[in-house]
Amino acid sequence: MSNIADLETSASGEAVDEGTIRPMSNETATTQFRPESAFFDTDRFAWRHLGPRPHDVAEMLRVVGAESLDALMEETIPSAIRTERPLDIPTGRSEHELLGTLRAMADRNEVFRSLIGLGYSNCVTPPVILRNILENPGWYTQYTPYQAEIAQGRLEALINFQTMVADLTGLEVANASLLDEATAAAEAMGMCYTIARGKKPRFFVADDCHPQTIAVLQSRATPLGIELVVDAPDAFPADVQDICGALVQYPTTDGRIECYEQFAERVHATGARLVVATDLLALTLIRPPGDFGADIAIGSSQRFGVPLGYGGPHAAFLSTREAYTRQLPGRLVGVSRDRHGNLAYRLSIQTREQHIKRDKATSNICTAQVLLAIIAGMYAVYHGPEGLRRIAKRVHAQTECLRLALRQAGHDVGDGLVFDTLRVRPKAGTTAGSVLAAARQRRINLRDFGDGSIGISLDETSDEALFCDLLAIFGTSGDPSVLIQEAKLDYPAPFSRQNDYLAHPVFNRYHAEHEMLRYLYRLQQRDLSLATSMIPLGSCTMKLNATSQMIPVTWPEFGQLHPFAPADQARGYAELFEQLEQWLADLTGFAAVSLQPNAGAQGEYSGLLTIRAYHASRDDTQRDVCLIPVSAHGTNPASAVMAGMRVVAVGCDSHGNIDVADLQAKAEQHRDQLAALMVTYPSTHGVFEESIRQVCQIVHDNGGQVYMDGANMNAQVGLCRPGEIGADVCHLNLHKTFCIPHGGGGPGMGPIAVAAHLAPFLPGHPLADCGGSAAIGPVSAAPYGSSSILPISWMYIAAMGREGLTRATQIAILNANYMARRLSDHYPILYSGQNGRVAHEFILDLRAFKKDLNIGPDDIAKRLMDFGFHAPTMSWPVTNTLMVEPTESESREELDRFCDAMIAIRAEIRAIERNEASREDNPLINAPHTAEYVSADDWAHAYSRQQAAYPLPWVRERKFWPAVGRIDNVWGDRHLHCTCPSVEDMQAER
Amino acid sequence: MSNIADLETSASGEAVDEGTIRPMSNETATTQFRPESAFFDTDRFAWRHLGPRPHDVAEMLRVVGAESLDALMEETIPSAIRTERPLDIPTGRSEHELLGTLRAMADRNEVFRSLIGLGYSNCVTPPVILRNILENPGWYTQYTPYQAEIAQGRLEALINFQTMVADLTGLEVANASLLDEATAAAEAMGMCYTIARGKKPRFFVADDCHPQTIAVLQSRATPLGIELVVDAPDAFPADVQDICGALVQYPTTDGRIECYEQFAERVHATGARLVVATDLLALTLIRPPGDFGADIAIGSSQRFGVPLGYGGPHAAFLSTREAYTRQLPGRLVGVSRDRHGNLAYRLSIQTREQHIKRDKATSNICTAQVLLAIIAGMYAVYHGPEGLRRIAKRVHAQTECLRLALRQAGHDVGDGLVFDTLRVRPKAGTTAGSVLAAARQRRINLRDFGDGSIGISLDETSDEALFCDLLAIFGTSGDPSVLIQEAKLDYPAPFSRQNDYLAHPVFNRYHAEHEMLRYLYRLQQRDLSLATSMIPLGSCTMKLNATSQMIPVTWPEFGQLHPFAPADQARGYAELFEQLEQWLADLTGFAAVSLQPNAGAQGEYSGLLTIRAYHASRDDTQRDVCLIPVSAHGTNPASAVMAGMRVVAVGCDSHGNIDVADLQAKAEQHRDQLAALMVTYPSTHGVFEESIRQVCQIVHDNGGQVYMDGANMNAQVGLCRPGEIGADVCHLNLHKTFCIPHGGGGPGMGPIAVAAHLAPFLPGHPLADCGGSAAIGPVSAAPYGSSSILPISWMYIAAMGREGLTRATQIAILNANYMARRLSDHYPILYSGQNGRVAHEFILDLRAFKKDLNIGPDDIAKRLMDFGFHAPTMSWPVTNTLMVEPTESESREELDRFCDAMIAIRAEIRAIERNEASREDNPLINAPHTAEYVSADDWAHAYSRQQAAYPLPWVRERKFWPAVGRIDNVWGDRHLHCTCPSVEDMQAER
Repeated sequence: MSNIADLETSASGEAVDEGTIRPMSNETATTQFRPESAFFDTDRFAWRHLGPRPHDVAEMLRVVGAESLDALMEETIPSAIRTERPLDIPTGRSEHELLGTLRAMADRNEVFRSLIGLGYSNCVTPPVILRNILENPGWYTQYTPYQAEIAQGRLEALINFQTMVADLTGLEVANASLLDEATAAAEAMGMCYTIARGKKPRFFVADDCHPQTIAVLQSRATPLGIELVVDAPDAFPADVQDICGALVQYPTTDGRIECYEQFAERVHATGARLVVATDLLALTLIRPPGDFGADIAIGSSQRFGVPLGYGGPHAAFLSTREAYTRQLPGRLVGVSRDRHGNLAYRLSIQTREQHIKRDKATSNICTAQVLLAIIAGMYAVYHGPEGLRRIAKRVHAQTECLRLALRQAGHDVGDGLVFDTLRVRPKAGTTAGSVLAAARQRRINLRDFGDGSIGISLDETSDEALFCDLLAIFGTSGDPSVLIQEAKLDYPAPFSRQNDYLAHPVFNRYHAEHEMLRYLYRLQQRDLSLATSMIPLGSCTMKLNATSQMIPVTWPEFGQLHPFAPADQARGYAELFEQLEQWLADLTGFAAVSLQPNAGAQGEYSGLLTIRAYHASRDDTQRDVCLIPVSAHGTNPASAVMAGMRVVAVGCDSHGNIDVADLQAKAEQHRDQLAALMVTYPSTHGVFEESIRQVCQIVHDNGGQVYMDGANMNAQVGLCRPGEIGADVCHLNLHKTFCIPHGGGGPGMGPIAVAAHLAPFLPGHPLADCGGSAAIGPVSAAPYGSSSILPISWMYIAAMGREGLTRATQIAILNANYMARRLSDHYPILYSGQNGRVAHEFILDLRAFKKDLNIGPDDIAKRLMDFGFHAPTMSWPVTNTLMVEPTESESREELDRFCDAMIAIRAEIRAIERNEASREDNPLINAPHTAEYVSADDWAHAYSRQQAAYPLPWVRERKFWPAVGRIDNVWGDRHLHCTCPSVEDMQAER
Repeated sequence: MSNIADLETSASGEAVDEGTIRPMSNETATTQFRPESAFFDTDRFAWRHLGPRPHDVAEMLRVVGAESLDALMEETIPSAIRTERPLDIPTGRSEHELLGTLRAMADRNEVFRSLIGLGYSNCVTPPVILRNILENPGWYTQYTPYQAEIAQGRLEALINFQTMVADLTGLEVANASLLDEATAAAEAMGMCYTIARGKKPRFFVADDCHPQTIAVLQSRATPLGIELVVDAPDAFPADVQDICGALVQYPTTDGRIECYEQFAERVHATGARLVVATDLLALTLIRPPGDFGADIAIGSSQRFGVPLGYGGPHAAFLSTREAYTRQLPGRLVGVSRDRHGNLAYRLSIQTREQHIKRDKATSNICTAQVLLAIIAGMYAVYHGPEGLRRIAKRVHAQTECLRLALRQAGHDVGDGLVFDTLRVRPKAGTTAGSVLAAARQRRINLRDFGDGSIGISLDETSDEALFCDLLAIFGTSGDPSVLIQEAKLDYPAPFSRQNDYLAHPVFNRYHAEHEMLRYLYRLQQRDLSLATSMIPLGSCTMKLNATSQMIPVTWPEFGQLHPFAPADQARGYAELFEQLEQWLADLTGFAAVSLQPNAGAQGEYSGLLTIRAYHASRDDTQRDVCLIPVSAHGTNPASAVMAGMRVVAVGCDSHGNIDVADLQAKAEQHRDQLAALMVTYPSTHGVFEESIRQVCQIVHDNGGQVYMDGANMNAQVGLCRPGEIGADVCHLNLHKTFCIPHGGGGPGMGPIAVAAHLAPFLPGHPLADCGGSAAIGPVSAAPYGSSSILPISWMYIAAMGREGLTRATQIAILNANYMARRLSDHYPILYSGQNGRVAHEFILDLRAFKKDLNIGPDDIAKRLMDFGFHAPTMSWPVTNTLMVEPTESESREELDRFCDAMIAIRAEIRAIERNEASREDNPLINAPHTAEYVSADDWAHAYSRQQAAYPLPWVRERKFWPAVGRIDNVWGDRHLHCTCPSVEDMQAER
């Protein structure tokens, strides 16, 4: 279709027509215009996605001293690993056309009213939250809030979430969300196991928990050597000492509200901990788990305003007693103060996390779902305690009316307490099959328990029309206004909730839409996102999240499907998954893909499980050694441990490359136990190691499998393929390479691609037909992970097309080399390849400043905020360095501004070196400077206010003010406080 | 449906259940919960729309000294004018439910591919613009940029639009948009008439202009006494002196590109001016009108990324030669500088406008369409000159290929030059009817010229599938790749465009999406909108624009309908219009409604035209006197003049009320010529005049009709009805009372409601079946005005319901009285009713400060910016006052903050009065203070930086920094520059 600008590019590096990155070739600008088609492209998504313009590319190539983009690629990527097979992906199409294609796909999904339950409920996303958070790049393009001074908005939103969860569950401390309810249960199991110091290797699970929760627990327990005991709560063995914890569902998966007070006593009597999986909406009416002895509560916050999305993304929660704070998985927002004494939020006690503790981490695949947690927290802010209670009361009243009508019609509906879910055993003469068929006739999905009983879960959106349909489905009718008079609506003691919740002003102040809107905008403006400036995080690939990719996410046909809706209602999704899997398989050079893992670390874990299953299938069960270079992501060793492997470290040479001799030695030493090597490519030091094929060969020769970490896939797409290099499996961070936005620290997606021999072991799911022929158990609650964000990656790949994807990789590498070149006159570049080229990221060495001047990466990171920039990755993979990854989406102007800022900072450091500036009082150690501070009546610094606030001329046009000054992390960890601060606290801090 | 909180309220003022404004009555909070229905509301939109919470209402009533809301209403609104009939509008429903209802309505519209042309084209709104402007409250809730220091973002966006229009049309100066192409043509006619000093009473219109343009010109010409001469351009009479101007369409309505160079000479030779209606996309390829002698160019910018919306809103443009700048209608953004010498934008030479010139204004109903102009300008920023040219080339290439194929098939397709439109005369044996039927079969709309010929207009979205369909419709086929080789694609001289356009960096810098996104965000952050804080503009009713109201606007089923699509494709719209008309008729107490007028002033004008037509129908053609109180909106006298009436002013007494005796005298004096009274109720002074019924009676007794200005309708809804008070017609500002957002100065909607005797005269349209039985001509290009924003008002009325609407009026009045009470200790309140109550707005008297200290409303307005607030209406209706209208949507906290700010400013004034502060150096006259200024190294003021920037403690949490210091308007008007400043200029100013 593209005749003017034919964009074919071969993976071997033939010239790519400029048309990829500019909309108009020269001939169209003249009057002698003779296109080969009247349907030539008027726009190309690649031209929007890529930052540098054609003339910039030429100039940047000159700066880096490369003849052409292809020449630069030749110098950067060893020719031995370049792929020779072009991408088998269609050529790029316009966003407009593709939105039409996706629209047609969406229309092949059918949105029934799903009353299936199982932890997923229909709900209403308040429009003001939908538009101004979920559909707002100011929120969804934010990075994880490690740089707290420019992340106060989302940190406040997350502490609202934590407070909400802690309040409703009746426990003291909640984290800032987890991936999904099932993995939250697994994390809770891990906590119990850790608290018991690994000495109690059994975990009890009530058999009336959600089946997907039990299945995920089983997947997780086995490699850790934990034995799962699934039984009725009454069967909890009182006389044992080897059970670390017990999980019950409250209300149960079939809707019963049981009293677990005595059960808690029995559990505690054995020295085990009680975990309660629960429902936040029910807890507005019934007794909170903290009240009856729960040590940990977990669950999903999805029904607080987050679309079903055919399974995700949603935010799970985990709350616990204060005593277990240090065992809490995931992120924890806490209150601290800044250097001026103002209250400030930040992530607390990060020392627990895997990026520090590596294989000693207590958890790993527990990444947060920040964007969704923020939505759920804001749902509580919007409704307040009274509004939530009112919603719960309505759902419960409808459920009781329904029960009464069905009972009157002769069906067995039980007589215990319920909240929103009934399990109905139809009367004689009515079969479950006939009821289910009648329901589908009315476009309603019910739960089929498979034993002749049927589940019905009502929700916030249930209305009178649905109610009448349900009665009709069961062959009866009833007058709701009569039923309501007879139904039993109140919970008796001890079941009814007695204590207050959400009393903090934040949940009682913003109920008018104007107040809510302004609150959201105030918070948003405190945060630096990609809508502000580049976020050059090494290994995190903060590229453009294009609007056209985000638009389909909130279409009802993608957003409102229940994950366990019948497959024939999800034909559009099936088509989307199939294409996406096929494309990802082609991009990686592998045979098959699983879309189930919900995050990168979960992908690693899943990949290792398939390797483990593969070895087991060959009776190589003793293979449990995982070789991991010392330079690896902290998640690698942590994942290996979770997959039941022993970590053996492999050294690196002085260039940051794997020490092949050491690898060879370790591989041979463990040749009978060797399970896998985990390797990142290009390396975490930002280098395409020449030896990668040899490395893979050594592992294979010794019976191991190669796991390639996909974090740096952005440097490979279209140029080389993990499968061709020698890997057996890799994960892909769709939220890095394939444009799913970071959402301030989640959602992510970490599908895995595997070679043919591993395909049979791809994860399955108890409630869906997915996974390989010898599938391992599920790793996520939903069969296809966070389905509703997969259209993002689909759009990206389809719109870029094979030529655009390849060009993106080239530009990403060019951008990195351009910055490295500009900065190399000012900072040492720590590693580079044989030709002096870096890959798509590079490391600035700051160790001398730390040593000589006590100026650390932190000081530079905070000073960058004064220039309006987010810091690069700090002190990883090498302490006292910064790792910069610009991505292909940044323009040359933006790269230059960042370089200008870094160069200006270098000059400020030089002034200290030369004693022209004080070591005790300089713009670096006092950074960041707030507006309040630089406009204070007193200014007692050796440098000027103007230098503090506007250190370069262009900063004036783009000034972004940090909300608070440098935050005191130590003070915060010492005075740990992880719920909304009281008004008195807020005032006292000022 | 609402059993817990039964919300019925009678218009006579019975108690309204608190349930209206709180979601949970007390009983639900207890465990003894017994609702009457299981389907009680969990949320009420009214609770979100209204600012004060129930406890606030109680406390505010205490402050104002009223027993109850009803008592306050009794004291505020004369009982004689209270309505006794409750609103005939359904009770409020939830936003969720109503979005479902509206979705079903939208689904009854059918989106065909419309190739009808007539000035409306399908186009692609770039997603980054769609989401971040059109769907972003930071942009759409802005007010008109009169307070330029906090409106720099949209002013820059508008100067981009002006530059784009000037460049493409080849003229020197363009305004910041007009309502639609047809009214732009009417404005151009008015300009020609004015330039000729009213001495040339004829206007020539080429008969190949769009028919709706000709019809609107006719409507406008008649009352002004201009004779329209509609004929072929060749028939332009060369020998006359009484023609003020001539209008041609370029390309013509049927697609021909004619050379008007000689025509221009002929026109100019008679002393007339040439107006060219044109198409911006075509102008990227063909010679601009300015090149061949046009004095004025007009047209629609719709196809630059603005959805069709079944007729609007879109931005029309008007550009002209520099010599006619002072005659230019509408708003004109210009470049000036702030007090620190920085470049700054602002509205220039406002002395032209009707709010200053009243009945001497050169134009009136020319309100801007800011939001849409911004979108069109950003479309050019996004595509740049090369991208636009490429789009145009593709459209043209397809048109030529289509022409070739149809010609080869034997159809008559003409042989002149065309751009995107063909007029096809089918060959013998093929009828237009059969072609049109075949087109509809394929879901394509073509234009039926009614003479056996058919129009086809292609556009940006046309693709190969459409092309093939078109060939098939004409019973032929063709290979596009062959056709393209044979088609004639280049324009010969003198038709081809030779000169450059859009060379300014702003059109060449932001083509990567990240750059574009950040540009939009930078601009947005310079503007204060309702997402920041309240905008308490008297008479402008800046209430909440709820998200749920905005969501349907961009649904394709509302957005992508052509205004002249067959009625059976717009059944959903028809239903929406019918309900909305019915509701508006009920709210006003009138018999019928026309949705055609696109703005308030256009509503006034249309209403007066119906009165004029009514008198004419009774042979009372001599009735041309319009009585207007001196306190009226400036638009009133301007509208009267446009409707061909003579304005006679009526005095006011010292309380701001109409001087009834003077009215009586004037009415009797002109009893044979009396056409109408225009009156605002409650008065522009914010008072419910007791005498209103008497006033209406006097007018009726003397043969006149009463026009009620709907600007203050927000104080009447549900409590009284214009039709019951005695008015015969009123307009409604849907963008004030009924929640259409102001969009930074447009769109608006000004439908009129009329009594039964005026209904026959409601405006019709040549291309649609609408209007009364003796309809006046159209006042807008589209039959239903800006259709796509009508769902906003529909949602508001439906969601509030009768009780919510009434409650809103009560709270609006309470909010105003509360603020007036709090501020009355610090500022004199200028007018109030007999019981000391104000209506929904009130006036603060600042005249003493001006007189004694030379502190004017401007100083207070600019100082309010330092507190984060937009000023109230300044010096209107009384010079040196501020008129405050809080609306019902503001919370008590927000009202208090605004009062706190005003009280703090009063203290600053007092310090000057007491000589504690300098008259020459104080925070008022130096306001606003920018971040750059308060953090400058030097500070030479008598007051502190902290007082400048953070004058009250809560300002710290909410600080909004003005982008520039006080702007020098005089300098700007003296150095008038109305296109993007050059880079040198920008630097020089700093």
